Amino acid sequence: MPTLSPRDLVERLSWRYATKKFDPAKKIPPDVWAALEQSLLLSPSSFGLQPWAFIVVNDRATREKLFAASWNQPQILAASHLVVFAIRKNLKAADAEKLIDRIVEVRNVPRESLEGYKGMMTGFLGNPPAGFRIDDWSARQLYIALGTFLTSCAALGVDACPMEGIQPADYDRILGLAKQGLGAVCVATAGYRAADDGYASLAKVRYPAEQIVQRV
Amino acid sequence: MPTLSPRDLVERLSWRYATKKFDPAKKIPPDVWAALEQSLLLSPSSFGLQPWAFIVVNDRATREKLFAASWNQPQILAASHLVVFAIRKNLKAADAEKLIDRIVEVRNVPRESLEGYKGMMTGFLGNPPAGFRIDDWSARQLYIALGTFLTSCAALGVDACPMEGIQPADYDRILGLAKQGLGAVCVATAGYRAADDGYASLAKVRYPAEQIVQRV
Repeated sequence: MPTLSPRDLVERLSWRYATKKFDPAKKIPPDVWAALEQSLLLSPSSFGLQPWAFIVVNDRATREKLFAASWNQPQILAASHLVVFAIRKNLKAADAEKLIDRIVEVRNVPRESLEGYKGMMTGFLGNPPAGFRIDDWSARQLYIALGTFLTSCAALGVDACPMEGIQPADYDRILGLAKQGLGAVCVATAGYRAADDGYASLAKVRYPAEQIVQRV
Repeated sequence: MPTLSPRDLVERLSWRYATKKFDPAKKIPPDVWAALEQSLLLSPSSFGLQPWAFIVVNDRATREKLFAASWNQPQILAASHLVVFAIRKNLKAADAEKLIDRIVEVRNVPRESLEGYKGMMTGFLGNPPAGFRIDDWSARQLYIALGTFLTSCAALGVDACPMEGIQPADYDRILGLAKQGLGAVCVATAGYRAADDGYASLAKVRYPAEQIVQRV
């Protein structure tokens, strides 16, 4: 069973940084990109609800529109690949039903065996805790996928840059997301760092471990 | 540079599942756990603000209290390791100042060179977009760390289970988080699956790729 060693994992995660300048000539090979798409699909989510969509934008004209909707950040154009992370908005009990349908299909189990599970989901989605906003909760799930994707990139030796600095309403319009019930939240660009990206050699800034990790 | 192959990555992520039954006799070796803690510390966050703390709970009596505050989910007691993911609440401009201090310290750069960066952060934290709730945004960042941690576990061959089904206010009280300005959001348990965890052999339920990934 191929795994990374603990030392290799830390080496990979230390190598990772938010790439500011990609080499536009270097493209992610198809087999590598296919695995990164799988990392998105296989990402965990609460209840397994997968309240998301991922839009991979290769079309140059669309990239240019998104560039303008992203404060002209150069990664949008220069990166080999760009993926928009979107939530499925206004998740509701019907989404729980849909997941139950899929479980029955994939696992070939009787629907009745999933009644308790369905009840937990519909109870949560139909009557969330006070102050809870479902779209915010879906966005949290989306960020699990973002973490999964960025870590997967690092494990494969692919550079990436997560980007929140986008204008979501413009993204929704440009990509036709609103009419699908989707809402763009953030972006990840991926590819290979330019040789002269000065950010690559900067020391990683983290607070001391003793300020972040507590032991009980 | 040690990396996973694309095939190995997909194999690792397919092997991963939300472990329901851990083998309580199997403990994560110290060097492996140290790497997983590093994955938390090295996790990306917006602006690099690291609006979080991670509480590793080994103490048995505390675990029993958390068990009661987690709907008696057995992973809380049976897993080798338990880490509570908490946000730093009410992030504000002072947190941007603190990060600037740390950048100056780690990179030995003049403070003046970071004025623009500081302005972006203080502008965002002091005057967030309409409808934005800072604690929700911090929780999103925390879920990047959750995704990083779960993917790192998979890469190392460690089983894990992310858990949102906790009573955060009880967690805050039991762990003394509120007085530190922290708030528990979710938990990850980690260890090794029990030989008889039936969930391990169930087919992974995902929607078809064409329903989740769009191409433009």
